[in-house]
Amino acid sequence: MLKLSEYPFHTLRNTSWEDWESNNILVRAWYIRQELAWAYNYLPLGFKVIEKIKKTIREHLEKIWSLEIQMTALGSRDHWEKTGRDQMEILFKVPFSDGKYNFLNPTHEEIVTPLIKEFIKSYKDLPLSVFQIQSKFRNEKRAKSGILRWREFLMKDMYSFHTSLEDLEKYYQKAIQAYHDIFKDLGIGNDTYLTYASWWTFSKYSHEFQTLTPIGEDTIHVDKEKKIALNKEIINDSDVKSEFSNYSFIEENASEIGNIFQLGTKFSDPFEMKFIDNNWVSQQIYMWCYGIWVSRCMWIVAEKLQDEKGLVRPKNIAPYDVYVIAIGDEKINQEAEKLISILENKGLSVIYDDRSISPWIKFKDSDLLGIPSKIIVSEKSIAAWWYEYEERSTWDKKIITDENFDILLKTI
Amino acid sequence: MLKLSEYPFHTLRNTSWEDWESNNILVRAWYIRQELAWAYNYLPLGFKVIEKIKKTIREHLEKIWSLEIQMTALGSRDHWEKTGRDQMEILFKVPFSDGKYNFLNPTHEEIVTPLIKEFIKSYKDLPLSVFQIQSKFRNEKRAKSGILRWREFLMKDMYSFHTSLEDLEKYYQKAIQAYHDIFKDLGIGNDTYLTYASWWTFSKYSHEFQTLTPIGEDTIHVDKEKKIALNKEIINDSDVKSEFSNYSFIEENASEIGNIFQLGTKFSDPFEMKFIDNNWVSQQIYMWCYGIWVSRCMWIVAEKLQDEKGLVRPKNIAPYDVYVIAIGDEKINQEAEKLISILENKGLSVIYDDRSISPWIKFKDSDLLGIPSKIIVSEKSIAAWWYEYEERSTWDKKIITDENFDILLKTI
Repeated sequence: MLKLSEYPFHTLRNTSWEDWESNNILVRAWYIRQELAWAYNYLPLGFKVIEKIKKTIREHLEKIWSLEIQMTALGSRDHWEKTGRDQMEILFKVPFSDGKYNFLNPTHEEIVTPLIKEFIKSYKDLPLSVFQIQSKFRNEKRAKSGILRWREFLMKDMYSFHTSLEDLEKYYQKAIQAYHDIFKDLGIGNDTYLTYASWWTFSKYSHEFQTLTPIGEDTIHVDKEKKIALNKEIINDSDVKSEFSNYSFIEENASEIGNIFQLGTKFSDPFEMKFIDNNWVSQQIYMWCYGIWVSRCMWIVAEKLQDEKGLVRPKNIAPYDVYVIAIGDEKINQEAEKLISILENKGLSVIYDDRSISPWIKFKDSDLLGIPSKIIVSEKSIAAWWYEYEERSTWDKKIITDENFDILLKTI
Repeated sequence: MLKLSEYPFHTLRNTSWEDWESNNILVRAWYIRQELAWAYNYLPLGFKVIEKIKKTIREHLEKIWSLEIQMTALGSRDHWEKTGRDQMEILFKVPFSDGKYNFLNPTHEEIVTPLIKEFIKSYKDLPLSVFQIQSKFRNEKRAKSGILRWREFLMKDMYSFHTSLEDLEKYYQKAIQAYHDIFKDLGIGNDTYLTYASWWTFSKYSHEFQTLTPIGEDTIHVDKEKKIALNKEIINDSDVKSEFSNYSFIEENASEIGNIFQLGTKFSDPFEMKFIDNNWVSQQIYMWCYGIWVSRCMWIVAEKLQDEKGLVRPKNIAPYDVYVIAIGDEKINQEAEKLISILENKGLSVIYDDRSISPWIKFKDSDLLGIPSKIIVSEKSIAAWWYEYEERSTWDKKIITDENFDILLKTI
């Protein structure tokens, strides 16, 4: 239970210094605070949401047999020099006290390839998939838009290793499905499209997951019925035109929340990562990588799922399950605390607003935070509101009696 | 279930390149791999152990009403300049593409103070305690010993804010107890001592939690009966000598796994962090900080809790609960998988060793990894071994029948 009287909780009415709504609302609701340009601290509520997004991602990736690991944020310069990517401007260069320097990793292909290489001997060791959820660092000159590219941000990056393109294709299909399931659970499944984009090598396209939003940094062409999209950057390619001639596209703003790159042997080659096939012949290993912009997901969900009162969070990524408001004297508080222990015994997490302030502020704050259920304990009655997935307009309100209390517990 | 036939699992027999045993054994058991000097990648088993250590810490800190947050790894140079600590050699300086530079935070006083300042208005908002578990970065010239100081490592850092020294003292007592409980749950409670050490300002002593270990970088003087210790650095101080004259100390090697510093107003002063008291007067805020070396804890536990066969992990920080070995044909594998689904339904996590290799290697590996329970499914019988907290010498072995299977499930 988060007891607000013991917590310096002052939501903000206005934040004029933020120029886009999702950030504004997250700041007002005390989810986040900026540390430096494009790097944010997560306050208790924001931290809980991020943990829930991580949990959702983990559950779906474990189903496709990916193993979670944690690689370092500091990357060895030797590794980056192997692929020639040590020249990328995006790399933060970190001088060490021994006079040398290393890097802050903006992505982990250069780390995961030599790491996994050690363990792959024969075809029996493949396929293998590993992932991590971790802070990435990019030395961006300036943000292209509020949420596109930050200097420090959370990312889920998964890497899979295969004996053949056929094997890789099979895993890719599973990963696509896992991604759709993840975005559905985050409450933005309906507006998220598998999007074809350009790619520098190996495969014809890379794949992005783009979510429609007016603040998006990308423009995509969407066929909403066939659930597919093309990134604007490839739309004028004649091959693309003929390949997708049967689709009816419309132009939309969108933000990239996931991507999948066919790396092929781009990284396994320089690191000489090979396997022994069943004829004892040494063969190339094929790699794919799969990203999800974890912190960006929190912003996008805030941007998309809000109304004039505040955040409207899907149950599984709400920071708490129930917001309990006590209005009245000490006796009412005792009543509320009894109710809260029942809720907590049912496994529900609770924000308890027992502050000595106007009920009006309590109502406002409870709306702003996006907690999907609200219970008001007052002299006259106990009343409960809750809303269904994604929509506060479906608020249901009940006066609680002993009879319908069980129904309430099942609904929340 | 971690199915080893689908996982490139090759534990190492020897690792001559590591110069100290806990690292050696963690590398052999495929828990960790070095990325660069004093920065380690966590492989799936190591990652799970770290997550369990985090869970243990969280549970105890939530009991003393500390709220979890996550601050950035990149720290604003402005913040570090405010306290004059921007000159510390230990700070990694990170050049930004706009020509300025910022820092990688080695600790977060400079970040947490201005962050929390925003929310503290009056005495009603205090006390407040927040913590995070996060990677820290230190530009170390060279490691003083294998585990003392790394360039990148996980730390739990908690910060508490108070209206008075009396209030702070009350919270300090709770924190001390939480720390003792945490180290007990990690299996090293018996050998961990609250240790008085020197401190540069404000308070007479700082407090460390030191665990006895031959690889420790510190020397402490311990009174094992009275459960207290002094860091060697203060032992010749005449004040100390008289204050602790009633204790019988012996000298031991130890490693610091936790610390508590009375910061007083050292950070609240430069950031002008104040509160309004109940007479509407602006007053100073007192701060304490409390650290736990999270990744070091994994190493220390490995160092202390092992025998000639391998790691011996306490149940609550073992990467998996049960190691199931199948010896035989496809029919035995089916038998084993039936058993595993019973175990998993009971909430137990399982490593399933179905590899087509010698049973001897499976036995060796299961011993090395430190999984507290082992079940062998073979043609003749199902046999189970398990050991109690901290000691494999208490291995209990049972042939499982329908009658004692329930007992087994309760024991594991």
